[in-house]
Amino acid sequence: MAERALKALNYDPSDLWVLDEEDLEALEIGAGILGTGGGGNPYIGKLRARLAMRSGYNLSILPLDRLADDARCISLGGIGAPVVAYERLKEGREGLRCVRALEEHLGIAIDAIVCEEIGGANSMEPLIAAAFAGLPVVDCDGMGRAFPEMQMTTFSIYGHRSTPSVMCDLHGNVVLFQHAASELWHERMARACVVSQGGASTLASAPMTGAFLKKYSIPHSYTQAVSLGRAVLKARREHADPVAAICAQENGRQVFSGKIVDLERHLRGGFVIGEAKLAGIDAFNGDTASVMIQNENLVFSRNGEVEVSVPDLIIVLDVDSGNAITTEMLRYGQRVAIVALPCHSLLRSTAALEVVGPKAFGFDDITFRPIEETKP
Amino acid sequence: MAERALKALNYDPSDLWVLDEEDLEALEIGAGILGTGGGGNPYIGKLRARLAMRSGYNLSILPLDRLADDARCISLGGIGAPVVAYERLKEGREGLRCVRALEEHLGIAIDAIVCEEIGGANSMEPLIAAAFAGLPVVDCDGMGRAFPEMQMTTFSIYGHRSTPSVMCDLHGNVVLFQHAASELWHERMARACVVSQGGASTLASAPMTGAFLKKYSIPHSYTQAVSLGRAVLKARREHADPVAAICAQENGRQVFSGKIVDLERHLRGGFVIGEAKLAGIDAFNGDTASVMIQNENLVFSRNGEVEVSVPDLIIVLDVDSGNAITTEMLRYGQRVAIVALPCHSLLRSTAALEVVGPKAFGFDDITFRPIEETKP
Repeated sequence: MAERALKALNYDPSDLWVLDEEDLEALEIGAGILGTGGGGNPYIGKLRARLAMRSGYNLSILPLDRLADDARCISLGGIGAPVVAYERLKEGREGLRCVRALEEHLGIAIDAIVCEEIGGANSMEPLIAAAFAGLPVVDCDGMGRAFPEMQMTTFSIYGHRSTPSVMCDLHGNVVLFQHAASELWHERMARACVVSQGGASTLASAPMTGAFLKKYSIPHSYTQAVSLGRAVLKARREHADPVAAICAQENGRQVFSGKIVDLERHLRGGFVIGEAKLAGIDAFNGDTASVMIQNENLVFSRNGEVEVSVPDLIIVLDVDSGNAITTEMLRYGQRVAIVALPCHSLLRSTAALEVVGPKAFGFDDITFRPIEETKP
Repeated sequence: MAERALKALNYDPSDLWVLDEEDLEALEIGAGILGTGGGGNPYIGKLRARLAMRSGYNLSILPLDRLADDARCISLGGIGAPVVAYERLKEGREGLRCVRALEEHLGIAIDAIVCEEIGGANSMEPLIAAAFAGLPVVDCDGMGRAFPEMQMTTFSIYGHRSTPSVMCDLHGNVVLFQHAASELWHERMARACVVSQGGASTLASAPMTGAFLKKYSIPHSYTQAVSLGRAVLKARREHADPVAAICAQENGRQVFSGKIVDLERHLRGGFVIGEAKLAGIDAFNGDTASVMIQNENLVFSRNGEVEVSVPDLIIVLDVDSGNAITTEMLRYGQRVAIVALPCHSLLRSTAALEVVGPKAFGFDDITFRPIEETKP
């Protein structure tokens, strides 16, 4: 398989960036930040990726520009509610089974694995599956962050049909969505299915070409996530402010410091839905804020006024470590910093905003305004 | 396809019983009775089958003993809540798409179609799919009646694994359950999926051999259903009692005549769940009765005492016509006769009662007693 992939892709083994444990530590932090509260718990994801690494598997990244135009790549990620994946560990080879079932069904061999969402544990999921399959992961993804639903990728937004796809769970169940009448139908059926499987499974979507990915994926996602993580680690070592380091690295800004004073959160239809309310501290003393949640942080409001919304990134951070706090780990009384980062321009087109803008999440009154335009 | 099937099955075209419109009328009545309240509305099923017939397709039945031992047969039926299928018509070729998707996935051609449940519209569903596919339907089924869940077939009970299976809906969605960890997992995932598709789809299960069917299917189901329907039609023509004719034909007995005085019924998890309460009339004046429902009639009690339970057949009939009343057509004030028929012996084994006995439906206090032993 590896040999055939090399031939089809026409890349040199020296082009591959083989991750080490330090890279993984940085990826955990960076992907956690880009996860905007969701995408699966990055700590659990890191432990699983590290186990694969220590078992002798190569976790390797292929630069996007080294990908052959006719390479066949499938995107892959965990699907379900992060809170379930945190409490019920995966069996481990769900992703590999997805790849193999899709290859078998289509009668083709896959050349590379693609990350569905760089945010959270879903940055690790493709690395683990690819390692077991002897394939590289391309340095790109479909979200540049995390989103709660499957059709919310630049792949789907810019015309890729994600079926046939395969869903595998820890029990050994394998479901193939051979054809969906639309991307939204795919999401509906897959969501119902993952709930019936217990709320946390893995899904691989129909192959895309290298040419498509070069045009419509969010580029350099792994490089970005690892660099971001390294910036945080550097700030920690130097006793500098990790929150400031994140903002500097990603051209973002800190929009709040506060204490969580109210937390509403429940599991509905396979999603974590809720709202966190905060009272300001330090420079934000006297202000209030709220963050609306559907697996990820969707809307940030200050004193009742919307200031940041999807697709821009809203990140809740532990003030001291600069670690992102995923939505299932939010607790009453936590002291947090909230940071807003601009999303990739592919997510800000009219077509994209229909799928990932505030209205797509039911916030009918909110019109997306890039964070650059809402600078206080 | 037809030629290849003939060769593989080694049967003669003259062995086939090609249904005519009179057969369909009788099948509607007979399958309605064997449906024990469920299996899909047989009237809707008949209209769809008749449309296929009038469009020039052959609806043909192959005797079980003419089936080659190595013939590859797939069972097929509607899945979902009967009440949905009654209100939202099918597109028409869901069954054919299931057959073709399964053939394509497995890389084999199918020799014959098998009925999953003879009760209700699910007697018609395989005939329609087979007609479009140019294949015969074998004269047998997996229930000898109707049951609400997929694992409740003699096929599953006696060791057949029903995956890979294919589910198709009217929107064009095609879902392939490639592997299920158990028959119950298959049911759970398929049920979640059919609910997400709107509550009424068609499902075809993994191929069975002719040898398996000869041993573990309920034999002669179509012959039985059509004969039963003919007995009712004959009674009507002769102004005889159709209810008595049904009992005579099937070795059953009338257990109640009454008026529906209370009706609780709701759609939950893709099922119609509920209870009908009756006050006795005629010979049963002064008695009360109740029928518990999950798509089908499950338990009949007289004056608070359980008298008939699954897997024996409990049928609610219109007194005048002898037509079965499906659970979604029950109405307050209806005057009905209730008839109990013995089920096939394959459904009364210890293995079968674990899957289709009262306890399998949550009636933990009820032990199945064959109706022959509860004769008043």
